[in-house]
Amino acid sequence: MPESPAPSALDRLTTLLGEVVDLRHAATLVEWDEHVMMPSGGGAVHGEMLATLHRLAHERFTSDELGNALEAVRADGTGDPDSDAACLVRVTAREYDKALRVPAAFVAEQARVVSTAQHVWQAARTASDFARFEPHLRRVLDLKREFVGFFPASDHVYDRLLDEFEPGMTTAEVQALFDALRPRQVALVREATERPAVDAAFLTAPYDEAGMLGFAEEVITAFGYNWSRGRQDRSTHPFATGVGPDDVRITTRWVEALPFALLFGTMHEAGHALYEQGVSPSLTRTTLEGGTSLGVHESQSRLWENLVGRSRPFWAHFFPALQARFPAQLGHVTTEAFYQAINQVAPSLIRVEADEATYNLHVMLRVELEIGLIEGTIDPAELPEQWRARMQEYLGVVPVTDAEGVLQDIHWSAGLFGYFATYTLGNVIAVQLWDALGTAHPERDAAIGQGDFSPVLSWLREHVHRHGCKFEPQALVRRATGTPVDPGPYLDYLEGKYRTLARA
Amino acid sequence: MPESPAPSALDRLTTLLGEVVDLRHAATLVEWDEHVMMPSGGGAVHGEMLATLHRLAHERFTSDELGNALEAVRADGTGDPDSDAACLVRVTAREYDKALRVPAAFVAEQARVVSTAQHVWQAARTASDFARFEPHLRRVLDLKREFVGFFPASDHVYDRLLDEFEPGMTTAEVQALFDALRPRQVALVREATERPAVDAAFLTAPYDEAGMLGFAEEVITAFGYNWSRGRQDRSTHPFATGVGPDDVRITTRWVEALPFALLFGTMHEAGHALYEQGVSPSLTRTTLEGGTSLGVHESQSRLWENLVGRSRPFWAHFFPALQARFPAQLGHVTTEAFYQAINQVAPSLIRVEADEATYNLHVMLRVELEIGLIEGTIDPAELPEQWRARMQEYLGVVPVTDAEGVLQDIHWSAGLFGYFATYTLGNVIAVQLWDALGTAHPERDAAIGQGDFSPVLSWLREHVHRHGCKFEPQALVRRATGTPVDPGPYLDYLEGKYRTLARA
Repeated sequence: MPESPAPSALDRLTTLLGEVVDLRHAATLVEWDEHVMMPSGGGAVHGEMLATLHRLAHERFTSDELGNALEAVRADGTGDPDSDAACLVRVTAREYDKALRVPAAFVAEQARVVSTAQHVWQAARTASDFARFEPHLRRVLDLKREFVGFFPASDHVYDRLLDEFEPGMTTAEVQALFDALRPRQVALVREATERPAVDAAFLTAPYDEAGMLGFAEEVITAFGYNWSRGRQDRSTHPFATGVGPDDVRITTRWVEALPFALLFGTMHEAGHALYEQGVSPSLTRTTLEGGTSLGVHESQSRLWENLVGRSRPFWAHFFPALQARFPAQLGHVTTEAFYQAINQVAPSLIRVEADEATYNLHVMLRVELEIGLIEGTIDPAELPEQWRARMQEYLGVVPVTDAEGVLQDIHWSAGLFGYFATYTLGNVIAVQLWDALGTAHPERDAAIGQGDFSPVLSWLREHVHRHGCKFEPQALVRRATGTPVDPGPYLDYLEGKYRTLARA
Repeated sequence: MPESPAPSALDRLTTLLGEVVDLRHAATLVEWDEHVMMPSGGGAVHGEMLATLHRLAHERFTSDELGNALEAVRADGTGDPDSDAACLVRVTAREYDKALRVPAAFVAEQARVVSTAQHVWQAARTASDFARFEPHLRRVLDLKREFVGFFPASDHVYDRLLDEFEPGMTTAEVQALFDALRPRQVALVREATERPAVDAAFLTAPYDEAGMLGFAEEVITAFGYNWSRGRQDRSTHPFATGVGPDDVRITTRWVEALPFALLFGTMHEAGHALYEQGVSPSLTRTTLEGGTSLGVHESQSRLWENLVGRSRPFWAHFFPALQARFPAQLGHVTTEAFYQAINQVAPSLIRVEADEATYNLHVMLRVELEIGLIEGTIDPAELPEQWRARMQEYLGVVPVTDAEGVLQDIHWSAGLFGYFATYTLGNVIAVQLWDALGTAHPERDAAIGQGDFSPVLSWLREHVHRHGCKFEPQALVRRATGTPVDPGPYLDYLEGKYRTLARA
C-alpha cells in the first residue's frame, strides 16, 4: 500500500486483514483438498476444521479492533479514490458493514437449512420428484427474505441478493439487459436450428484422457497460465480456486462421452485462474486480492473458452497440433469442419451442456423464475410448469422429467439466489472487453493465428486483472471499455458469428 | 469422553481444545500441501498462512478461558487415572504449563534463528564447509540452553530437550540404554562385515517405479492401511502425517539407484500411519489423538519395516508376487538369496541409508555429541573431528568430507536437539512389543507366512494404537509388555537374526 497517507493506521488495518485473509486462505485450501485429495473418511474432521476456520475468520473480521482500525484510516483520509488504500477501505467497510448486519445465529441457521436442502435436492433429483424438494425450497426462500431484511430497503427485494455476487448491479438493470437479449437470442437460436446439422461424430469418437489433457495443458500454457503459481487436478465438478495470486489451482474432469468438455473446461477454468494470477502483488493478503464479481470472473473464463477457444484464428494455429495427437480421429477432418462442429447450435435441456448461443436462454429462464419466487409472484409449486413453458418458448425443447428440468441445478438448494445472472453478465462483458481489446490491438486475431496470446493477456492484465476487486464491476467495465455494461456488442458478435457459420 | 465425572466443565474444555486441534489440523494440512502439492510460487503466502494458524492455535491454547476450564475439570476430579478424561487433563495440563513458560518472543526468535540456520546449513553442506555453519550452530545451542532455563532444574540440562520428544525419558536412562547397546552392536557389526558379501546386484537392477509402487501398496494394504482414511503421494522426503485418525497420509519417493527404498520406506511410513489410524475415535479432536512420543511412533514404523518387512515369513509369502511383477530382475533369484541381500550388513557413512544392524550406531554417535554440545563438554569447533573419530570406532568407516559427515542431517540446524535418541528407542521398543505380541499370538509368524497380518495389527491396536497419547512412552511399554524399556530383547533379536543369516 505505498500510496498510504496514514501509514500507521493503515498498517494496523492491513495487519489485521492479513490475518483474516490467512484464515480464509486456509479454508480455501481445505476446501480444495476436500474436493481433490481428501480420503473419503476425512469428511467429518475436515468439516470441523472448516467450520472453525470460517468462524475465526468471521470473529476476527468483525472485531472491534478491526472496526477501529478501519475507522482510523477513514478518519485520516485515503486521498486518491482509485488508490489501493482508498479502495481497500471502501471494499472492507462494505464487507464489514454487511458482516455486522447479518447475525451469526442467522448464518448458522442458514448453513443448517441449506445443508439439509442440498441433501434432499440430491435425492429429489435422483427420484425426479420436485414435490419432495419443495418444502425445503420454501424454507430457503424464507431465509433469503429474512437476509434481505437485515439491510436498508432497496428498489427491489432481489437487489440485495444480486449485490452479493455482483456488487452495485440492480434488478432493474439485469431485467433491462435480459429484455434486450431475449428477442434476438430466441430468433438466433430458431434460425440456427433450422439449418441442417453438420457432421460432428468425430467430436465423440473415442479419445484418450491423457492425450486430451496433454493438449489442454499445451493450450493453457500458451494462454499464459503460470504453472509455478498453480496446478491442475481432477475433481467431480471442475473449478478454479486461489490461495492468493501466487497459488491459483484449477481442476478438470474426464467424461468418456464428451471428450472435448475437458478441453473447453480447462480453457474456462484457466480463464478464471489467469484473472487471479494477474492481480497486483500489492493486493495480496488484503480484501482486494480476488476477482471483483462473479460476472467479471465469468467474463474471463468465457473470453478464453469461447472468444479465443472457439474462434477460427485459434484453430488455424492449433488444429494441426490436435490432429497430430489424434490422427485416427481427426486426420481426415478439415479445420473448417472442426470449427463448424464445435460451434454447432443445438437447443438442449441441460444448462451446463448448452452451447454458446443457447446458454443465456437457460440463464434467463432461471433468473426470471427466481425473481418471481423472491418477490412472491411465483409460488414454488408452480415451478415445474413454469419451467417447461419457458423452455418451450425460449428453446423449443421441453423436459419430460423434473430431473432434466427444474431440479437440474444445485444453486437454489444451496441458497445461491442472485447467482445465475452472473453467467450471462459474464458473456456480455466478455465481448465488450474483447472489442476494446481488438481496438487497442488490431493485430489480436493475427497474433492468435500464430499461437501468440500476449496481446490478449497483456491487455486483460492491464485493464482487468491487476485491479483485483478495487473497482465494482460496472466501474471496471467503464474504465476498461469506456462504456457501461451493454448487451449490444454481445448480440452483434453472436449474430455475426452464426451468420458466418451459416454461409460457410 | 464417556467416563467423565464432571460433564459440563469437561465439555467446555473439550470444546476449547477441539478448536485448537482444528487449527493444528489446518496447519498440518497446509504443511502436507506444501511438501506434496503446492506450486513453487506459493511459498510466501503459505508461510504467512501457516504462521497465522500456529499463532492463533497458541493464543487459543494459552487463553485464560482454557486455563480456567482445565482448572475446573481438575477441581471436579477425573476419577480413574487411566480414563480418557484423566489422561486428557494430565496431558493438556503438561502442555499448557509448557506453553505458558516459554515466552512467545522466544518462540518467534527461535523460528527466525533456525530458519536462517537451515538455509546456511544447506549451503554449508553443498560446499562441505562446516566452518560456515558453526556460528549458526552456536546460536541454536544458546537458544536451546535458554529454553531449558524456562523450566525447573532437572538432573541433566539435556533432560528437558529429550522430554520434548520422549516425555518422561531422562538423559541418564538414554545413556544407560546406549551403554548397553554399544559393545554388542559394535561387535555384531564387526563380525558381520568380516563375512563375505552376498550377491545383491539384483536389488539395484533397473526396476520401474509404477511396478514397485504397486507392489508396495499391495503390501501395506495387506498390513491393514486404510485407504479410505489416508492416501499416498510423492515428496522429496518421505513422511506420514495425520489430520486426525480419519485422514492419515503418507508419502514416498523414487530413487532410481535405490529401487527398494520405495518399498521399505512405504512400509515404514505405513507403520507410522497405522498407529494414528488406530487411535480410538473417542480421542479425535483432543490433545490425545496423536502418537505418544517419537520413540513409540518409530517403534511402529520400524516394526512393520524391519520385524515384519525384512523377515523370512513375510518374504515366504510375498516373494512370488514380487517375482511375478519383476520376472526379468528376480525370476532367477531364490527367496533365501533375496532375504540375505535385503538384510546385508554394510557400514556406511550416511544414517538414512544405514541397515538395521548399523543404524543405532549412527544414532548413538549423534546423541553423544549433542549431549556434549549442550552440557558444554564438546565445543562446536571440535565436531568434525569428534564425528570422524566415533565413526572409526563404531563403524570402521570415516567420512572424507563434512557433507558425508557432520553436515549430513538437518536436525541441529532446525533446533531439533533431543530428537535423535528416539530413533534408537523406536528400534528397542519395537522388539519388546514384537516379543510380547509373539507370546500372545504364537501363530504370529505362521500367519505372516500366509500374508495374514491381523494378529500383528489387532495386538498393536489393542495395546498401543488405541491409546493415542494417553500414556507416557515408558508407561505404555510397561502396560503392553510388562517390562520397562529394555535393550535386551533388541540385542537378542539382532544377534539371533545375523547369526542365522551367517549360517544360511
